Amino acid sequence: MKSIGTGKGSNKGQKRDLAVIVSEVPATAAGMFTTNQICAAPVKVCVNHIANGKAQAVVINSGNANACTGPRGLKDAKEMAGLMAQELLLQPEDVLVGSTGRIGLQLPMPNIRKGIGQIVKELDDSPTAAHHAAEAIMTSDTQPKEIAIEFKLGRQTVRLGGIAKGAGMIQPGMSPNGIRPASMPLHATMLSYLTTDAKIPAATLKRCLREAVASSFNCITVDGDMSTNDTVLILANGLSGNGKLSDKDLKTFQSALNHVCLELAKMIVRDGEGISRMVTVRVKGAKTQKDADAAARSVGNSALVKTSWNGGDPNWGRIIDALGYSPAKVIEEKVDIGYSTPSRKKLVYSLKKGRPTRTSFKTLCKAVEPTEFDLHINLNLGKGKAILYAADLTEKYVDYNKGDISDPASLGG
Amino acid sequence: MKSIGTGKGSNKGQKRDLAVIVSEVPATAAGMFTTNQICAAPVKVCVNHIANGKAQAVVINSGNANACTGPRGLKDAKEMAGLMAQELLLQPEDVLVGSTGRIGLQLPMPNIRKGIGQIVKELDDSPTAAHHAAEAIMTSDTQPKEIAIEFKLGRQTVRLGGIAKGAGMIQPGMSPNGIRPASMPLHATMLSYLTTDAKIPAATLKRCLREAVASSFNCITVDGDMSTNDTVLILANGLSGNGKLSDKDLKTFQSALNHVCLELAKMIVRDGEGISRMVTVRVKGAKTQKDADAAARSVGNSALVKTSWNGGDPNWGRIIDALGYSPAKVIEEKVDIGYSTPSRKKLVYSLKKGRPTRTSFKTLCKAVEPTEFDLHINLNLGKGKAILYAADLTEKYVDYNKGDISDPASLGG
Repeated sequence: MKSIGTGKGSNKGQKRDLAVIVSEVPATAAGMFTTNQICAAPVKVCVNHIANGKAQAVVINSGNANACTGPRGLKDAKEMAGLMAQELLLQPEDVLVGSTGRIGLQLPMPNIRKGIGQIVKELDDSPTAAHHAAEAIMTSDTQPKEIAIEFKLGRQTVRLGGIAKGAGMIQPGMSPNGIRPASMPLHATMLSYLTTDAKIPAATLKRCLREAVASSFNCITVDGDMSTNDTVLILANGLSGNGKLSDKDLKTFQSALNHVCLELAKMIVRDGEGISRMVTVRVKGAKTQKDADAAARSVGNSALVKTSWNGGDPNWGRIIDALGYSPAKVIEEKVDIGYSTPSRKKLVYSLKKGRPTRTSFKTLCKAVEPTEFDLHINLNLGKGKAILYAADLTEKYVDYNKGDISDPASLGG
Repeated sequence: MKSIGTGKGSNKGQKRDLAVIVSEVPATAAGMFTTNQICAAPVKVCVNHIANGKAQAVVINSGNANACTGPRGLKDAKEMAGLMAQELLLQPEDVLVGSTGRIGLQLPMPNIRKGIGQIVKELDDSPTAAHHAAEAIMTSDTQPKEIAIEFKLGRQTVRLGGIAKGAGMIQPGMSPNGIRPASMPLHATMLSYLTTDAKIPAATLKRCLREAVASSFNCITVDGDMSTNDTVLILANGLSGNGKLSDKDLKTFQSALNHVCLELAKMIVRDGEGISRMVTVRVKGAKTQKDADAAARSVGNSALVKTSWNGGDPNWGRIIDALGYSPAKVIEEKVDIGYSTPSRKKLVYSLKKGRPTRTSFKTLCKAVEPTEFDLHINLNLGKGKAILYAADLTEKYVDYNKGDISDPASLGG
């Protein structure tokens, strides 16, 4: 796979803002897309182009989301794909597109056209090129997000890599066709592009991606806002030369993909706009799976819980309050609330069966002091489990997102 | 009606923190209570005591919510009612109780006992006494909330007055028995106590209160968190001497009650923790009533929409994004978004049928500059309508609610 990121794609200052990823040969492809009913033009184009399970290139601009841009926006997104196809001697359907940035502005097509003409000359399969692509898709991100791993399928060494962006408007809820299943809870722009040289049939790739996204990108929240542009794409070009996948190989691939998606998803939360702490909310003992997810999201999106995390305050009252108004079944006398940190596996409980424990305030403060800790909630009502990677709410987040109307360029997505 | 607020009820500093309201004669009574599954002891006691549609006194402490306090909390809430009954020579069931403040701490009963013994000597029917009661129920409120009106039922002049408190953990969803109907959307501590000298049968009073709360206290949000203690109570003692209510009288009473509840509800939003703007979100053209409510709440609770309001940024992209991920049916090409201020009735549109209007950025900035403005959303899909009184999200809110762990008394509810 080759990639590169460069400038001139969009209109947001001097940084790199156009990225391309190109496979040397046709690849199988799968995607997961925002279930927001207001869905950006590039998402519509992707859903359409990926329907055949194939793709060979992706082109992404940052600074402009091409969302809520009407028929012209859709035409522009198609033109992006078409121009890239022309440059690479492909069909437009072989090219996927992505955009991220401010909603409601038309794409600066002169820049995009010029940018696409130039960028294909810079394509490269070096880590530096991939790094530049990761930089080019950033918006409010403070750092690029990238990962690459190697593993074996049979005797063959296979590579899997990815880049991602996202810092605000983050609570994705993605599905393969952008349609929200009735069972899906309500949930930024986040984009992630994955490539592998494994050989995998399109239908299998789709199933694997859906599973990986369900326990990674669809389980993060920064501010509870789901974007119009959320997209995860994977291209598998088969150049590793692995043979037909055994059940064991499939498991290996799935766990590799889960790992890559989860690491990228956590990078997004850690780089959330203005955040100071990432909290892994672990709910168990819920009556159902759906209840577990609803309980975790109610806690992870509560303004009062999030501000207490910012203050380093082990306030269980706000947590149990958020559990109580969630759609999940909760019985006060059954709720356990505790903390652990990656370095200290032992749980420290603030609440057991709805009653405060004798653990001192000082000890509890220590438990919620690290920049990353786990919040353990046991509803003690059933077997439903869920994990949500959440963030605190800070003055910096508010300051960043209120922007400055005297400088419209400061106004975010 | 007599009332008073005084100190010594709770443990939160020097302010008044104990309030009582007493009717000279037995009154009919009705209440609406939080539908949070984690429900404070005083709410449980109220639901029980009000079941017979009668009451003669209310006693409320601030600084401590008596929530998540187990069997001892329930015993303490009952004792509060019992002590007040003793002082007034009533039955415990004739006394309703309320608490607001920090969750999870046991009531300081020595203070409460001493306070109740003293406060009954200070009871008074002056406006100053009512003002002191309004002060005594404040927590993070910066000012007391009170209103009193007079109107005619037949030839009789009737009085209706109320006090309220609430500034954070505000998105009430109350029902008469504290049980959430399946149809009720998910939604702080807010308390409101209403008294009237009208003569109204208990069943009628209950119906009127439910209707008034549905379009007032149940339609506000500061931070989207629903409290364990939300309570609205009304006592009607009949001393005005009005006769049997005609249909016209009932309408008059209902509209008076609606007015009082809505004014108090808006005072809560205006005094919301750290807020700088109150925005009335008016949704119309929704497919259903439920859709209209869901759309309004999705917008009014979106962190990104709320921070843009704080910045005075007429960002419609975040609004349509929040509409799109709401459970309400939304079609991008049909959405209108506009603004009006109380002084300028004319709407200024930022979006028509999903497309930005030619209205200048400067004009739109002016529309969202006032401390109070209306946001008009027309989904153009049906006849569903809803109004939500919402607030912006500020750095001050975060600063206030993150508290200071070195000073546990600063840590809020």
